[in-house]
Amino acid sequence: MRAVDIIQNKRDGKILSKEEISFFLDGYLNEKIPDYQMSAFLMAVYFKGMCKEELEIFTEKMVNSGESIKFTGVENFLIDKHSTGGVGDKTTIALAGLFASFNIGTAKLSGRGLGHTGGTIDKFESIKGFTFPKSKEELIKMTNITGTGIMEASNKIVPLDKKIYALRDVTATVQSIPLIASSIMSKKLAIYSDGLILDVKVGSGAFMKNIDSARQLAKSMLDIGEGFKRKVAAVLTNMDEPLGLAVGNSNEVIEAIETLKGRGPKDFTELVETLTAVALMIKGDVKDLEEGKKKVREVIESGKAIKHLKDFIEYAGGDPNLTEDYSLLPRAKYEYLIKSGKSGWVQGIEAEKIGKAGMVLGAGRETKEEVIDHSVGVILCKKTGDPVKKGEVLGKLQYNNEKNLDTSINFIKEAFTISDKKTLEKKVIFEIHTVNI
Amino acid sequence: MRAVDIIQNKRDGKILSKEEISFFLDGYLNEKIPDYQMSAFLMAVYFKGMCKEELEIFTEKMVNSGESIKFTGVENFLIDKHSTGGVGDKTTIALAGLFASFNIGTAKLSGRGLGHTGGTIDKFESIKGFTFPKSKEELIKMTNITGTGIMEASNKIVPLDKKIYALRDVTATVQSIPLIASSIMSKKLAIYSDGLILDVKVGSGAFMKNIDSARQLAKSMLDIGEGFKRKVAAVLTNMDEPLGLAVGNSNEVIEAIETLKGRGPKDFTELVETLTAVALMIKGDVKDLEEGKKKVREVIESGKAIKHLKDFIEYAGGDPNLTEDYSLLPRAKYEYLIKSGKSGWVQGIEAEKIGKAGMVLGAGRETKEEVIDHSVGVILCKKTGDPVKKGEVLGKLQYNNEKNLDTSINFIKEAFTISDKKTLEKKVIFEIHTVNI
Repeated sequence: MRAVDIIQNKRDGKILSKEEISFFLDGYLNEKIPDYQMSAFLMAVYFKGMCKEELEIFTEKMVNSGESIKFTGVENFLIDKHSTGGVGDKTTIALAGLFASFNIGTAKLSGRGLGHTGGTIDKFESIKGFTFPKSKEELIKMTNITGTGIMEASNKIVPLDKKIYALRDVTATVQSIPLIASSIMSKKLAIYSDGLILDVKVGSGAFMKNIDSARQLAKSMLDIGEGFKRKVAAVLTNMDEPLGLAVGNSNEVIEAIETLKGRGPKDFTELVETLTAVALMIKGDVKDLEEGKKKVREVIESGKAIKHLKDFIEYAGGDPNLTEDYSLLPRAKYEYLIKSGKSGWVQGIEAEKIGKAGMVLGAGRETKEEVIDHSVGVILCKKTGDPVKKGEVLGKLQYNNEKNLDTSINFIKEAFTISDKKTLEKKVIFEIHTVNI
Repeated sequence: MRAVDIIQNKRDGKILSKEEISFFLDGYLNEKIPDYQMSAFLMAVYFKGMCKEELEIFTEKMVNSGESIKFTGVENFLIDKHSTGGVGDKTTIALAGLFASFNIGTAKLSGRGLGHTGGTIDKFESIKGFTFPKSKEELIKMTNITGTGIMEASNKIVPLDKKIYALRDVTATVQSIPLIASSIMSKKLAIYSDGLILDVKVGSGAFMKNIDSARQLAKSMLDIGEGFKRKVAAVLTNMDEPLGLAVGNSNEVIEAIETLKGRGPKDFTELVETLTAVALMIKGDVKDLEEGKKKVREVIESGKAIKHLKDFIEYAGGDPNLTEDYSLLPRAKYEYLIKSGKSGWVQGIEAEKIGKAGMVLGAGRETKEEVIDHSVGVILCKKTGDPVKKGEVLGKLQYNNEKNLDTSINFIKEAFTISDKKTLEKKVIFEIHTVNI
């Protein structure tokens, strides 16, 4: 078998055999197949795709390239929620309280933010003293006690994905549905869970810019899940405008807390209600989405959800009182108000630009080396569909120094489109697809 | 400018600017852009092609990556003939005598054979004492005295092509029309000539398997020629079966000599007559192909053509008497006759298999390191369209030892298809396309 023939077969649209895929991926991992052959292969995959069988074999090889975590001592039904990434996405924080309210465990690896989207690890680190588990054992203990275990993603899990991703990044082969699907799913499958919820973001601020490509990605991931006999739900959700009102780190923690108190923004509340309801369906506790959402509203109203998030924060070393006293969280020194230049209705808020407005203030990082300022960020005062008067505040910048302030202001101004005609608010949930449920 | 963005633009089918192509190719030549980015780019070009303007810029960068040879002291009108490679292609040897008969000079770089096709340099080296020029000055002197100057291709001419070709070879990106066109044309344009004839081979034994792809390749090369304001003719010729009857090295020299004596095989004779007639049209000596071919037949009949080849051989250090006494050329010790198992008509002779039959006997090399045995090879006794009786000889193997003899015999047997019904001989010349003529 020769690497060049395998590249040629993929180039010509042939279906690769298990032997061919194994030969190629093993060879790459063992450095017998060089980067330049892998990059030509990846570009051929970009153009020719992979069928369900190829995708399953490809993903299996990825999973087996490193360590797998199979939890033996976890008592709860385990559900892992994964988001393809967006602006203002504090969902994991809110779900920590909600899932625990229903005895659903979450034991997951999370990442840090890069570019215009933030990372869950960074957001939790807004909380002084918050410490993540350092080992599998600590993760299991945290999960058993609080219901939620979150650990920073390690290099030992799916090292092949890390190697391939670094190459895709510099060879214009990132935007390939089967490669995205196998990259996400390999990392999710390497960590055992009873069910998996994929929050596939769609829109200008997401990886998938339109519903068709999001649907294709969801299908590819469900195909893989089916092959691995996992219960998987893919929820296609809006990322045309930022999620909620807060974009940053500590401000997003506050918004998640507010939401568990029943005072969250409408879109974010709907998202967490839906995702938790889907989790209840996977677990078999409810018969449909409406019943699930009703139960979610009950645990929010009863205070159970916020209590579980407090317990989680306390277990991790943070001060639980911060859920009542936000001054315990880092706050920016200054605020800058961006006002509307005209009256009308908000037609759209480009998520990517809002993400960048926060990033340049220090809420995110452009390169891996940059240090995050947890206190800064953006607070939106209007969302799509809202009426606005000339001079009314569209959004606030929370900042500590004036460096990049003008750039940030411009990003916010560019992000907003104000229409003379009445506009509609954005739909939050587009579609739900499931497999093995 | 970033390499990854240029790859992405090509991937998305955008037309690259001069700056982008220059940045990418300069970067690759200077080793600032690594192989893995070039191979992804090449695969994107495989799928998305290059337009005329891109191809011209790409080829110009290739030409300028190394030395160019501009002949100042050559007196004749210079025409370079290039073949895309085939089995039994001894055309350059015959043209050495024919072009010189019309005061057309040829100053060219030739290569050695690899795989199932032979190289001109190897064929001339069948002649004891034959020595090629070692410098540009020696090449010019040889051209001025004999009309023909042939030198072995050097690394200094278009080094970028050498680097890119090596990468294409291992990344399944060889079969890309624009990449083939720019590779061929860059090497031809780096050596000055007044006119260029491209013999584009079509068929099972050629790089281009069908007339459509050959036409596309011809068009791409003519486009480049037009951009460079050169007189170029592309002649699409048959390579479904081998050219002529002899396949090897010294046996091909003999066949070329026989052809200049007016006793050559019909197909090969037609090819050299046509190519020389095209050369006369480029030079402006004749008004059409028929007039040109008539003139070619005259110089063959008059003995002028063979006289010029003799002079060329003598100048290069070979014994000119070999044109009369073939025992002065290396000859194989043994002969093996392959007979037909049935009566009928020859329907086809797969050129690639005949090439391999010769190669395994030692007439060609599979890897660059192998040493060629100039005396061995294949002599076909039948061509497509010929009637054949059971037991009649289809072809002869000329060999020196029995190693690989069985493999060679099998290749010959597999190459021939005998039909019960009458078949037609193969057409030699398909189409002629020209630019600036």
